[in-house]
Amino acid sequence: MTGRLFVIGLGPGNPEQVTPEARAAIDAATHFFGYAPYLDRLTLASHQTRHVSDNREELSRAGAALEMAAAGRTVAVVSGGDPGVFAMAAAVCEAIEKGPDAWRAVELIVVPGITAMLAVAARIGAPLGHDFCAISLSDNLKPWELIERRLELAASAGFVIALYNPISRARPWQLGRAFELLRKHLPAETPVIFGRAAGRPDERIELAVLGEADPAEADMATCVIIGSRETRLIAREGQRPLVYTPRFAGEVR
Amino acid sequence: MTGRLFVIGLGPGNPEQVTPEARAAIDAATHFFGYAPYLDRLTLASHQTRHVSDNREELSRAGAALEMAAAGRTVAVVSGGDPGVFAMAAAVCEAIEKGPDAWRAVELIVVPGITAMLAVAARIGAPLGHDFCAISLSDNLKPWELIERRLELAASAGFVIALYNPISRARPWQLGRAFELLRKHLPAETPVIFGRAAGRPDERIELAVLGEADPAEADMATCVIIGSRETRLIAREGQRPLVYTPRFAGEVR
Repeated sequence: MTGRLFVIGLGPGNPEQVTPEARAAIDAATHFFGYAPYLDRLTLASHQTRHVSDNREELSRAGAALEMAAAGRTVAVVSGGDPGVFAMAAAVCEAIEKGPDAWRAVELIVVPGITAMLAVAARIGAPLGHDFCAISLSDNLKPWELIERRLELAASAGFVIALYNPISRARPWQLGRAFELLRKHLPAETPVIFGRAAGRPDERIELAVLGEADPAEADMATCVIIGSRETRLIAREGQRPLVYTPRFAGEVR
Repeated sequence: MTGRLFVIGLGPGNPEQVTPEARAAIDAATHFFGYAPYLDRLTLASHQTRHVSDNREELSRAGAALEMAAAGRTVAVVSGGDPGVFAMAAAVCEAIEKGPDAWRAVELIVVPGITAMLAVAARIGAPLGHDFCAISLSDNLKPWELIERRLELAASAGFVIALYNPISRARPWQLGRAFELLRKHLPAETPVIFGRAAGRPDERIELAVLGEADPAEADMATCVIIGSRETRLIAREGQRPLVYTPRFAGEVR
């Protein structure tokens, strides 16, 4: 008898941004796998068990969760944001592909969540209002040359760029290098948004321009949004400026 | 005295995917602006008024909502999905930029939602598990040449591509042209997902390969996700195959 595996997106951290669908999945599961800060967001009942693992152990965490689901239990893997965006859903699929046949028989239910770029964008206007891309800046899982090439092509294409995993203790220089590279393709006044913990009490949304953007404004939990040539700023008295990218675009470059 | 304007994302249509934050904003507002199918999703009280407008009238709808908020009312503009992704938040910002000073003083609160690509991706695995982009295929607001160039650059960059507004009665050929173009850059076996009404009772998720993808599978409300060279399929007995894009990537092309 096989069980079920929920892969649940908890959103960026504001409990008001957790969907009822995610709440129902949490109520249904008895075993919870995840990185401690995400598990800490849950209030579990006495029949529900936590299985904490480190941030870097996605594949073994996915395997342990699948093992338990294949044995008939109702299991949840929890992610911040959306589980399908640089999070656990891809690791679970990878584990299923590489694992025993029994794991393919598990009923897999991915529960979407508000991903960081949407929450950050909402707090400052509509920077993602036109075509955009999302790039993980981590070179743990792909070569840095590929990231550089993607950044250049994305800027040439006129995409607004949302950067996930912009910086960490082990990856201190990558964001600075990305800014340098993008300065060759985009005007110095291009808006850059540093969005951390959007919608949480410790929220921090900082606005800069590409010419002066300081990588030290970002940490592991920051989503960095870099405008396109079309992205605009609206000054407001007594309120933070709005940043938005118009729905229309005129020029082919 | 100025009022408040909420720009609310209702998600793809499943009421279980509407966040508590969005529900609270709906409860707080007294005047509701939007396209009829989105307003129809709300159950309003007798003191709450609907202001229906056509799908193409985003800017005048935004202006009317701002006018009413500037007069002191608590107003909501509702969008399907996320309001910041090819939806009303950018139109509201544009109206603020072009409009009278009083509109800049309105307290603007954008409430994020689950955007279509996240809901569709969740129903089939993790196709957005690696770097990706979102492109509106509508050439109402940008020249078709720009869209073609973006598609080519996106495919060269190795992005998974989520297409919004893929087709409509007034734009019947664009999706077919996009597939033709992408066939020059991506293998014929690249997975293509047609996702309509994800999470709703009338949900329809169809899986194809780029070489044979038929634009007739899509309508106005479909989000089309086209894999990258890395995107993989996992066959499962008695269940739909899983589609996912691995977190890692090895090659620089």
